[in-house]
Amino acid sequence: MNTFGKIFRLTTFGESHSPAMGGIIDGCPAGLTITKDDIQKALDRRRPGQSEITSPRNESDTIEILSGIYENKTLGTPIGFIIRNTNQKSKDYNHLKDVFRPSHADITYHQKYKHRDHRGGGRASARETVSWVAGGAIAQKILDLHDIKVTAFVKSLHHLSIEQPIQEIDLKNIDDNIMRCPDNDLAEQMIALIKKTKAEGDTLGGEITCIISNVPSGLGEPVFDKLQANLAKAMFSINAVKGFEYGEGFNTTKMKGSEHNDTLFWDKNQLKSKNNHAGGILGGISNGENIYFNVAFKPIATLMQSQQTINTKNENVTVKGKGRHDVTALPRAVPIVEAMTAMVLADFLLLNGISNFSI
Amino acid sequence: MNTFGKIFRLTTFGESHSPAMGGIIDGCPAGLTITKDDIQKALDRRRPGQSEITSPRNESDTIEILSGIYENKTLGTPIGFIIRNTNQKSKDYNHLKDVFRPSHADITYHQKYKHRDHRGGGRASARETVSWVAGGAIAQKILDLHDIKVTAFVKSLHHLSIEQPIQEIDLKNIDDNIMRCPDNDLAEQMIALIKKTKAEGDTLGGEITCIISNVPSGLGEPVFDKLQANLAKAMFSINAVKGFEYGEGFNTTKMKGSEHNDTLFWDKNQLKSKNNHAGGILGGISNGENIYFNVAFKPIATLMQSQQTINTKNENVTVKGKGRHDVTALPRAVPIVEAMTAMVLADFLLLNGISNFSI
Amino acid sequence: MNTFGKIFRLTTFGESHSPAMGGIIDGCPAGLTITKDDIQKALDRRRPGQSEITSPRNESDTIEILSGIYENKTLGTPIGFIIRNTNQKSKDYNHLKDVFRPSHADITYHQKYKHRDHRGGGRASARETVSWVAGGAIAQKILDLHDIKVTAFVKSLHHLSIEQPIQEIDLKNIDDNIMRCPDNDLAEQMIALIKKTKAEGDTLGGEITCIISNVPSGLGEPVFDKLQANLAKAMFSINAVKGFEYGEGFNTTKMKGSEHNDTLFWDKNQLKSKNNHAGGILGGISNGENIYFNVAFKPIATLMQSQQTINTKNENVTVKGKGRHDVTALPRAVPIVEAMTAMVLADFLLLNGISNFSI
Amino acid sequence: MNTFGKIFRLTTFGESHSPAMGGIIDGCPAGLTITKDDIQKALDRRRPGQSEITSPRNESDTIEILSGIYENKTLGTPIGFIIRNTNQKSKDYNHLKDVFRPSHADITYHQKYKHRDHRGGGRASARETVSWVAGGAIAQKILDLHDIKVTAFVKSLHHLSIEQPIQEIDLKNIDDNIMRCPDNDLAEQMIALIKKTKAEGDTLGGEITCIISNVPSGLGEPVFDKLQANLAKAMFSINAVKGFEYGEGFNTTKMKGSEHNDTLFWDKNQLKSKNNHAGGILGGISNGENIYFNVAFKPIATLMQSQQTINTKNENVTVKGKGRHDVTALPRAVPIVEAMTAMVLADFLLLNGISNFSI
Repeated sequence: MNTFGKIFRLTTFGESHSPAMGGIIDGCPAGLTITKDDIQKALDRRRPGQSEITSPRNESDTIEILSGIYENKTLGTPIGFIIRNTNQKSKDYNHLKDVFRPSHADITYHQKYKHRDHRGGGRASARETVSWVAGGAIAQKILDLHDIKVTAFVKSLHHLSIEQPIQEIDLKNIDDNIMRCPDNDLAEQMIALIKKTKAEGDTLGGEITCIISNVPSGLGEPVFDKLQANLAKAMFSINAVKGFEYGEGFNTTKMKGSEHNDTLFWDKNQLKSKNNHAGGILGGISNGENIYFNVAFKPIATLMQSQQTINTKNENVTVKGKGRHDVTALPRAVPIVEAMTAMVLADFLLLNGISNFSI
Repeated sequence: MNTFGKIFRLTTFGESHSPAMGGIIDGCPAGLTITKDDIQKALDRRRPGQSEITSPRNESDTIEILSGIYENKTLGTPIGFIIRNTNQKSKDYNHLKDVFRPSHADITYHQKYKHRDHRGGGRASARETVSWVAGGAIAQKILDLHDIKVTAFVKSLHHLSIEQPIQEIDLKNIDDNIMRCPDNDLAEQMIALIKKTKAEGDTLGGEITCIISNVPSGLGEPVFDKLQANLAKAMFSINAVKGFEYGEGFNTTKMKGSEHNDTLFWDKNQLKSKNNHAGGILGGISNGENIYFNVAFKPIATLMQSQQTINTKNENVTVKGKGRHDVTALPRAVPIVEAMTAMVLADFLLLNGISNFSI
Repeated sequence: MNTFGKIFRLTTFGESHSPAMGGIIDGCPAGLTITKDDIQKALDRRRPGQSEITSPRNESDTIEILSGIYENKTLGTPIGFIIRNTNQKSKDYNHLKDVFRPSHADITYHQKYKHRDHRGGGRASARETVSWVAGGAIAQKILDLHDIKVTAFVKSLHHLSIEQPIQEIDLKNIDDNIMRCPDNDLAEQMIALIKKTKAEGDTLGGEITCIISNVPSGLGEPVFDKLQANLAKAMFSINAVKGFEYGEGFNTTKMKGSEHNDTLFWDKNQLKSKNNHAGGILGGISNGENIYFNVAFKPIATLMQSQQTINTKNENVTVKGKGRHDVTALPRAVPIVEAMTAMVLADFLLLNGISNFSI
Repeated sequence: MNTFGKIFRLTTFGESHSPAMGGIIDGCPAGLTITKDDIQKALDRRRPGQSEITSPRNESDTIEILSGIYENKTLGTPIGFIIRNTNQKSKDYNHLKDVFRPSHADITYHQKYKHRDHRGGGRASARETVSWVAGGAIAQKILDLHDIKVTAFVKSLHHLSIEQPIQEIDLKNIDDNIMRCPDNDLAEQMIALIKKTKAEGDTLGGEITCIISNVPSGLGEPVFDKLQANLAKAMFSINAVKGFEYGEGFNTTKMKGSEHNDTLFWDKNQLKSKNNHAGGILGGISNGENIYFNVAFKPIATLMQSQQTINTKNENVTVKGKGRHDVTALPRAVPIVEAMTAMVLADFLLLNGISNFSI
């Protein structure tokens, strides 16, 4: 369905080539100061055409807020917003009206709905995530009340990966390069790889890591709304995501308990754990330590190469991408990961009555 | 919260040492033939004390069905059931009343709820999953209408792992050994490792793989209830789970699009894809191919070794496990993975109106 | 909250004087033929300024559909839409910035949210219902698949009331007069009363009756989503509604069982009941007979008379309405009642898998 | 469906003659002091066989609490409970296996589910409400934190009705008589009427009024979860309810705005309204005044008289009640109305973060 969250709820609409994308944020408390610029700034980080390594679709992604904010303060009523689609090139998709791109949602939308809007991938397009970033920008305002900080970055692109332990990564460098990788040297190699791969008409996968600091303990609801379960669901909503792990993740399968367990101790009245292998969550509930997780993105499905496929007439044919596509979901997925994370946390804060405040 | 699903909904209750575990299955269609034995058989696969490598807590896990089934057929009304807790040894937990086991939910329940039932881990105990398996057994009846088969198995324990490609694994062997690993030789090594680790008072992690065959296309709801998103959420509800990946998962981050994409072709009027790297889901919607995924389990937190920790008086102390604990979540988690998977699929079948049928 | 429905879900936004009203319809099946005109026609029945007895606020209420419909057919994706607010006269509300109209939501919005948009009543304005009528027009398309007909009309205005039994009312006459009362003579008296009351600066209450014909049996979910419970909730969402009764309603409290019970008989293979006192619903589930109910509307709170009230400075003051207000919620509430009813029914049809169809 | 509420959620199960009734209360905060006696006392007010004017089915209605309460304090985990059905006389229902009682859910359950448990009305039995009263008793503990008081009473039975204005009724007398009518003389007449009607094999309808005092302002969520909308939905969940009105209800349809409006004034720093015609709710949100509403109950459908009806073989037959039935839903519905009301309010308190408290 098209609603995310229980108390802080984002509902979205829009096809890649419909008149507009947009959404409604319901459940946002009254009295939060929000300007249009706060949201626009977040959208600009996700915008296509922002750098030489992203899709050149030239969308300004200008948001229009239609309700719920009055005199720059939230009213407690739903915040309706739209972002017009202005730079569609629908002709680029004529050849896809009856043909299904391999490993793309073209076919499953056809199977499920029979009638579909093939232009630009319709609703399966990652263009949808523009509304999620708007939602995240508003959710972040709730997190700001608690100084909670959500920081995502590109950890790896294909074989190029940060190898440092997570505690040693300097998060300050992330926005120093268009790759959003905290290691500037590695970022340069990644950019070079993207350009080379683009020239080949091919695409790339990679990983994004997200760290959340200053999380109050007690967030997350046993047993079916564990904090990690809702974070995982949020991440698997993002196009091209194939894996999610938190704390030591898949590494834990090769660890013994004596090696993995985070022993606890008091350090000047502050509860500490030795390694935070747990990733800040125990039994589905935050323990106050940093939360961190990795998200795996597959390579983009649309290639500028000829691929074997089928069409609606049950014929075997070939297809080759046209239009404007990213070579990799990274680095534009960085603000998307952050936005979805912010919405999960805002929802749990409100569910716990933590963010009910007077203005 | 304690409800799972949208249409087919399981709501559960129970602490490890409360009088009973139990739940309510709501949204199950009328007219399904279900006997108590069908459910009991599923519970027996999860039961402690079932083999020499599982916890010796001797629970018969006998289910009592209290409503919703009449003359062995579902009524369409909620199915209430309880499983009595009969073999609690609460004294084994006296030393944990004020002390928090490292990497265990003891501390976060204390942080969140202030008042907690420390006996046997209270609601954070994996004993809770007995109700999930009951729910899964009933969900499977809906899947049976479509011949959908859910099969999970132990893929790895610590460093011991199946290395074959998933298509080549013979699923018939899974229940030939108490490890529920389809490779009997590897299973023996795993069992030996568990025994050795138990002697050391330590614990082990590992992976479970799940394969779903015969899934109709069209299951899964864009954009926030993608099939993989709900499967991920289901898996992260299970205690000790730290990672989830579907299809080629984290491997895809090192693949190029040309390598990863599953080209499509018609094979005698049947739609086929070359490799099913996708794992049966595209754009959040099943495409009719097998769905498969891996789940990472960390080692059990409770050790029979002395560990540093803290208590409620803000003192640094040590703690050592007593009571009866598993060395690893595997192989008992195999039926739990299957049960949660079955409930996700049943829910989507009903949501799509696919399973509405006459008796 | 601002979402209505479980499967067929309308989420709305908008303040009376915000840039736009609008909403998202999620859960609408793919393949339904809908034109913009179908929806516009419904909106025109609710529009202010449509006759001499309604508010002269001159809104064209032109809908813009932003997604979810492609080539005049639904995509199965969310249908986003907006209706611009174009004829606001915010100055008419300056005197209400700090003053609360008696019996109006002015004060409770202030109590709940602290920060509010006083212009035109903000979100408490019945202008909100324009989005509901859009939702109802789309829901009606699902009802059309089953030939279900929803017909509401003005039953009474103040002391002027239809006295005939419901079975004898000729529904064909409803749109013959601007009052939407099936009795043309009575309608004329009502119109005269409205004009007289307007001249006095006063307002009027009344009743709307709604009849639903051709309802399949089996709609409604015990025990907390009974058909009448969801209809009641829908009606009490409408501004100014103070009462709801179905079937014989409050009359039943003075009937004996032998008098009230609808005896059953077979009339040429068709199940019939003697009187349909039940109003088409038994045990929360439709039985196939006509459903009918009455809705009580209080007089509009905003008067063109001076009333005693308070302001935000805790002073006793007087207030007098400015701006453009209806004298009575009727007859404009007729299409609103129909719209909410259509959405309740569409939701239950989809929940029962009844409306899943191939295009 | 069988879940009520958003945050404070009751999910129930049980057929009249299944082994047990029961439910799960989820979302109740941790740290509330609750004894089994608190709940049992509430159940005893609803119990059959409590007086000479109620059904003689002799159920002790003893509750067993299975989880969620430890050392007489809530854990914040789900509270599972069951009430065994012990005094079923299933033989009394053999004649109803294939025959449908007029104006009873027998037929609609058959239409909807095909397979049904005819014994005692199955799930359509008002026996279901025993779990609601348990839920209400726990909800009341949350209301107690705010000194909110919910008081229902019998206002009318058939033609016998309290005529005083609601403000003048002395609520202290309600439990002085088995009719739960605050006017002892009227109660005696009502009891006589019930006895007379029972002798005739007939049944009676009537009204219950409910008053809620000490409600904080700000409860209720626009626009689709208005406080009155959720109260209405709650009331229409109760068997035999045909009407609901709050404040002046249906009377308002004959009032002018100048007559109905509650003018506001400050009385020594306390906000007051002249008449509280509004019934404590404006724009869907509580304003701090008393909330009051009326609920209409139809006469019980099962008569000890012969009635014309049909059977499953499409034959016209007659049916006559056996077994033990109430002549009227009143006075046993009084605690049911209170319980549902308490749950609605507890849910809104939690939703507003008002009841999050430290123990």
